[in-house]
Amino acid sequence: MGDSPGKSLSGGGGGEVSSLVEEAKELQEAAASLVSRTSREEDALRQRAASLDSRINSLRSSKHDDALEDELVRARYVLSEGDAAAYLPSKSHGRFLRMFLGPINVRANRKDVQLKVKEEYNNFRDRTSYLFLFLPSLLLVLRSWMWEGCLPALPVQLYQAWLLYLYTGLALRESILRVNGSDIRPWWIKHHYCAMAMALISLTWEIERGPGCTQKQRGVELFLRWAIMQGVAMILQNRYQRQRLYTRIALGKARRMDVVWGETAGVEGQLLLLCPMLFVLQGFEAYVGVLLLKTALSGFSPDWQVITCGILFIIMAVGNFANTVQTLATKSKVKAKIRRGKSRQELNSGSEGKSL
Amino acid sequence: MGDSPGKSLSGGGGGEVSSLVEEAKELQEAAASLVSRTSREEDALRQRAASLDSRINSLRSSKHDDALEDELVRARYVLSEGDAAAYLPSKSHGRFLRMFLGPINVRANRKDVQLKVKEEYNNFRDRTSYLFLFLPSLLLVLRSWMWEGCLPALPVQLYQAWLLYLYTGLALRESILRVNGSDIRPWWIKHHYCAMAMALISLTWEIERGPGCTQKQRGVELFLRWAIMQGVAMILQNRYQRQRLYTRIALGKARRMDVVWGETAGVEGQLLLLCPMLFVLQGFEAYVGVLLLKTALSGFSPDWQVITCGILFIIMAVGNFANTVQTLATKSKVKAKIRRGKSRQELNSGSEGKSL
Repeated sequence: MGDSPGKSLSGGGGGEVSSLVEEAKELQEAAASLVSRTSREEDALRQRAASLDSRINSLRSSKHDDALEDELVRARYVLSEGDAAAYLPSKSHGRFLRMFLGPINVRANRKDVQLKVKEEYNNFRDRTSYLFLFLPSLLLVLRSWMWEGCLPALPVQLYQAWLLYLYTGLALRESILRVNGSDIRPWWIKHHYCAMAMALISLTWEIERGPGCTQKQRGVELFLRWAIMQGVAMILQNRYQRQRLYTRIALGKARRMDVVWGETAGVEGQLLLLCPMLFVLQGFEAYVGVLLLKTALSGFSPDWQVITCGILFIIMAVGNFANTVQTLATKSKVKAKIRRGKSRQELNSGSEGKSL
Repeated sequence: MGDSPGKSLSGGGGGEVSSLVEEAKELQEAAASLVSRTSREEDALRQRAASLDSRINSLRSSKHDDALEDELVRARYVLSEGDAAAYLPSKSHGRFLRMFLGPINVRANRKDVQLKVKEEYNNFRDRTSYLFLFLPSLLLVLRSWMWEGCLPALPVQLYQAWLLYLYTGLALRESILRVNGSDIRPWWIKHHYCAMAMALISLTWEIERGPGCTQKQRGVELFLRWAIMQGVAMILQNRYQRQRLYTRIALGKARRMDVVWGETAGVEGQLLLLCPMLFVLQGFEAYVGVLLLKTALSGFSPDWQVITCGILFIIMAVGNFANTVQTLATKSKVKAKIRRGKSRQELNSGSEGKSL
């Protein structure tokens, strides 16, 4: 006992124990050296990526012809589609992520991991969009079959709690996608904030029972009808976006650089169905908002909750409409460019192979 | 125009553009090679860390004397306190994190980043614990000064929405800390689930107004009184835990290996104040739970919300009590070990320098 630990441990497994401490120290040093080496190299890559990025941006903002523009797009594409993307200047994490998670890093440092995160996000949207269609349908069916025209409070509140979870999850996941380089429009995340607020408010909304409840529950009923339409639109939208991602990955494997041109291939037909659906939905959303305001002002259920939800519905409808129109405008610009690009490519036949 | 793009671009900035594409490709290759090299080396470190970890665990579970045990603790400590910690087998992310964030990696790969996450978590707890004390106090003060003994619904609901956010944030942050190697007890995260459920339920809880409201609002009043006590306990607890972290970091800088022994130094006095406070709080929590059940059964406010909140209060009180007792038991075991360790160190005087 009076001896040094190293010696006293030499019998009965002690030798193995001292070697464990030694091994742990070696591992420790190996880890520290890997971390410092990697972070040095990563800093260097980050600097190169940032300078290249800013040069591309400044050239794109100055005047030039179409061929030059194509080359710039190509350079930007090379930069953003592979592992180098992880070293591009990052979009800020944003207040919402920091509020819930603190300052942790949610950026994947490999392109394949980023694509996996996107894929899982699509799965989440798929799963939830079926529930989004199913739950309000169930509530309305049960109302006429079992509940004699009057919704009880608990099932509606469970549904509203689920909506709150859903929109919080979507806002968190889409913020994470943005940090990982997705070009998702900021509006959609703001839309989820509105929807979160609405779910929270409708939880405090008294569900009236007793005689005359059909009239008093008009707001809830309108909301459920809108949710069913929204569910159908979500399912269509998901199919469309999933096909776009698959096309990107598949083309990316075959010929990474061409992806940006082939992005919308094969899904044009679906867009023809999706667009009118989205506009009808947005119209209905605004209509529900106006009806809620009217219900509140006519005195049937004059709670502040009804008024606030009405206003939120109108804000969301207007925002969704503006952003759908902008997305379509961008798409048609890209399409025009593809057409120009194709005719130039035909003129330049064979030259592409060289420039790659 | 009939020429290859490379050539046709040679005039008017075209040269610079082609070089941008080239540079982007080079950067791309450098990034891909760094990523593949690093992930190979990381896999190797992960394997070494996993094998060392399992050997330490199997030796610790077999019989041995105290000196050997100390060496094993030391080996475990070397392994877990530096950068190598990032390569230890990870605790699973858990359902809760996956539900909200999807499968993204929230593990920091450097020890200093992990400590920063912990530090920010402590800041979050600090900020929120003052609000935790302030908000219910404000509600109770305004009730007697302005609201004539009757709480209006909106301020109470805003407070409950804040509680829902707070507990969701705490559950997410603590799950992230666990993934990053914190030894936080799983119960505390489960406690936050209960508290989230309670906040959600109390949002749907009708706040009665009008005559007799003091009697009907008894449940809310008890909850607010408990929250004030909880706020005080949180502030004390945070001070205690923050001091522990500072001690760890400071000692870690001076002599990293000694941290595990010096962890509780200088905060003993605070523990003497904190412990009785915590036990009183847990008793009061159970009491509030029982009172809520009694209120519900006596027919003053027989909503399911009151019953469920009562049951949740009792579950949380029992769980908190059991876990506080277990934590104290662990602490006293560690203390006994330190005492033994110290007397051995005095006997071995000087040998420590060698074994390090």
